[in-house]
Amino acid sequence: MTEYAARALLPEGLQDELPPAAEHEAAVVAQLVSAFAAHGYQRVKPPLIEFEESLTQGPGAAQGTGMFRLVDPASQRLMAVRSDMTVQVARIAATRLRNTARPLRLAYAGQVLRVKGTQLRPERQFTQAGVELIGTRCVAADAEVVLLALESLAACGHARPVTVDLTLPTLVPAIAAALGLPPALAQQARDALDGKDAGELEGLPAEAFRLFNILLEAAGPADRALAALAGLELPPDARAGVAELAGLVAEIRKAAPGVMVTVDPGEYRAHEYHTGFGFTLLATGVRGELGRGGRYDLVGPDGGTEEAVGFTLYVDSLLRSLPKPGAVAFVYLPFGTGADAARALRAAGHRTVAALAPETDAMAEARRLGCSHIFIEGAVAPVAA
Amino acid sequence: MTEYAARALLPEGLQDELPPAAEHEAAVVAQLVSAFAAHGYQRVKPPLIEFEESLTQGPGAAQGTGMFRLVDPASQRLMAVRSDMTVQVARIAATRLRNTARPLRLAYAGQVLRVKGTQLRPERQFTQAGVELIGTRCVAADAEVVLLALESLAACGHARPVTVDLTLPTLVPAIAAALGLPPALAQQARDALDGKDAGELEGLPAEAFRLFNILLEAAGPADRALAALAGLELPPDARAGVAELAGLVAEIRKAAPGVMVTVDPGEYRAHEYHTGFGFTLLATGVRGELGRGGRYDLVGPDGGTEEAVGFTLYVDSLLRSLPKPGAVAFVYLPFGTGADAARALRAAGHRTVAALAPETDAMAEARRLGCSHIFIEGAVAPVAA
Repeated sequence: MTEYAARALLPEGLQDELPPAAEHEAAVVAQLVSAFAAHGYQRVKPPLIEFEESLTQGPGAAQGTGMFRLVDPASQRLMAVRSDMTVQVARIAATRLRNTARPLRLAYAGQVLRVKGTQLRPERQFTQAGVELIGTRCVAADAEVVLLALESLAACGHARPVTVDLTLPTLVPAIAAALGLPPALAQQARDALDGKDAGELEGLPAEAFRLFNILLEAAGPADRALAALAGLELPPDARAGVAELAGLVAEIRKAAPGVMVTVDPGEYRAHEYHTGFGFTLLATGVRGELGRGGRYDLVGPDGGTEEAVGFTLYVDSLLRSLPKPGAVAFVYLPFGTGADAARALRAAGHRTVAALAPETDAMAEARRLGCSHIFIEGAVAPVAA
Repeated sequence: MTEYAARALLPEGLQDELPPAAEHEAAVVAQLVSAFAAHGYQRVKPPLIEFEESLTQGPGAAQGTGMFRLVDPASQRLMAVRSDMTVQVARIAATRLRNTARPLRLAYAGQVLRVKGTQLRPERQFTQAGVELIGTRCVAADAEVVLLALESLAACGHARPVTVDLTLPTLVPAIAAALGLPPALAQQARDALDGKDAGELEGLPAEAFRLFNILLEAAGPADRALAALAGLELPPDARAGVAELAGLVAEIRKAAPGVMVTVDPGEYRAHEYHTGFGFTLLATGVRGELGRGGRYDLVGPDGGTEEAVGFTLYVDSLLRSLPKPGAVAFVYLPFGTGADAARALRAAGHRTVAALAPETDAMAEARRLGCSHIFIEGAVAPVAA
């Protein structure tokens, strides 16, 4: 069988992780979740599939077309495979944990599936890991979440320069509303800013044209962007949002001075459901974002809402951004090695590979099996090349 | 919303794991995989879904009716959600890793889904963790795998008495073939032994009736069963199988003298695809088996076979059998706690919960949030009850 045939055994966008990648991914997820736990975020584990209507609530509405669907033979109801875990964690917070004290800190990690990959992320299965901080709205909460995202990257050895790209998806709609723009023009303005297309601003009333052009040109390093926003006359809603954003930038600067912070005040796609700031984590030279998050309203099954903020890391992008794992060392145990000696080696942290039958040349057998070391004359010795 | 309504948000047999259960499960899986790794088993991670025809090959054939199926919009081919990971690991060994030296030691852990729960395991999603040792047939390999299963249970703190129930599913067919029993009578014999129903042996030829009655009564503690088998005149195939089984029992006795070993020479259901011994791990007082495994032929996509032995642990049963996890300790950080002090606490292994706003009574707030400790006057103090 050719390598091509072996690969074609799997549907496109799905793959087998082999040694040592599979172990590395599990270790990275454990390091992320451990960083979350150190800040008081407790793990929950929702199921891979649930009723379709649960998965398309709130922030899940935008995911609706991207999920695999299946009929549950038990209930005859439509189920879906999750394409995102945020909506599940929100459901847990609003139902099973509705009586737990707020602010509630929850963490999660698991697989998600999408019907179609994107150009930047052709994978149809990948691992998400993230947190939600539920039941409070303040800059301290926003900052805790953004800084935890950065700290968790560092916890798994991420060493590339990271950019936090902040957005304020509520800003353009607030300005459009204050200016009394009709819905079609408001949408035109949002599309122009989201697409960074000044030409699309043509035809807007003069004051809107002027304001949105300033917003469009403000995108870039946080200080410059915030200065441009500070110079604008904004309606009260928008002004409060900008003040929160400036507070968040100051907190990030203080705690993580080496991180590049940018602000794109007009971006809103993929941040539609955010009720405050949104953010994206990018690493220099790495395809696909490392993660994203922001502030949103968590909607419970009875329609009540809670203010929440959180992020999700995309572990596949993160793995592309991390140093490759080193080779794993194995100690070959020649046939007849005593069980006590073998146990002592493992207790000392060695990984052992036991001979299952007498060998004529133990060193050659160790080499054939890819072991880096051999246990010989009571000691661990390197395998000769 | 009532608790009943909250539960009914999920399809039957699916559930949310909450704190601290979700974290405990992840820790147990990590301990299992770490025990596998210490013995040279390297992790692989196949996708959750793949082409249905791949998942129903070899040992997967018996699973065919239990899998969720879905059509892949990309290829228009039928896919299925895995209901067992063994068949996926076998596929990886036979394709991507076909040129890797044998014996090949692979480990895995992940979620599986089944369309229907059983009485003993109503869950439709659960976690499997296991190993496969591929490309060799010998008692040393069989023993390594059974003993690793036992050691991995101990590694995650399993303390209940464990029984290894061994079977030899090839024995009854070999005897039936040697006696020249027609297929219908051979099947009758297998069903009688599998169901421990001596009455069903009526009507078999006298020699078969006598032999199978002895096998049926032999089921029980290993020594007695092996003595009964040793006293039988058996065809060469069956004799070789019994000798392997006796060798395996001796190895288990030597390395794990405290473990109860039983032999049921007639059991074959759920062991149909085994080409040598099969085994089941049971814990006293726990519903559902902890795991199962045995020897089988791994079939490659080109039809070639390799001899293999492995096991799968059912993490849901294992969790029921383990001591409940203790409460997690959290240190409340009153508002204004310095970032350096907080970082030092986390570096020392504490889990911190930071105040997000000034509190009037920090101790009361720590208690309200369920923190066991509070950071006060530069030290960690217990929260007053």
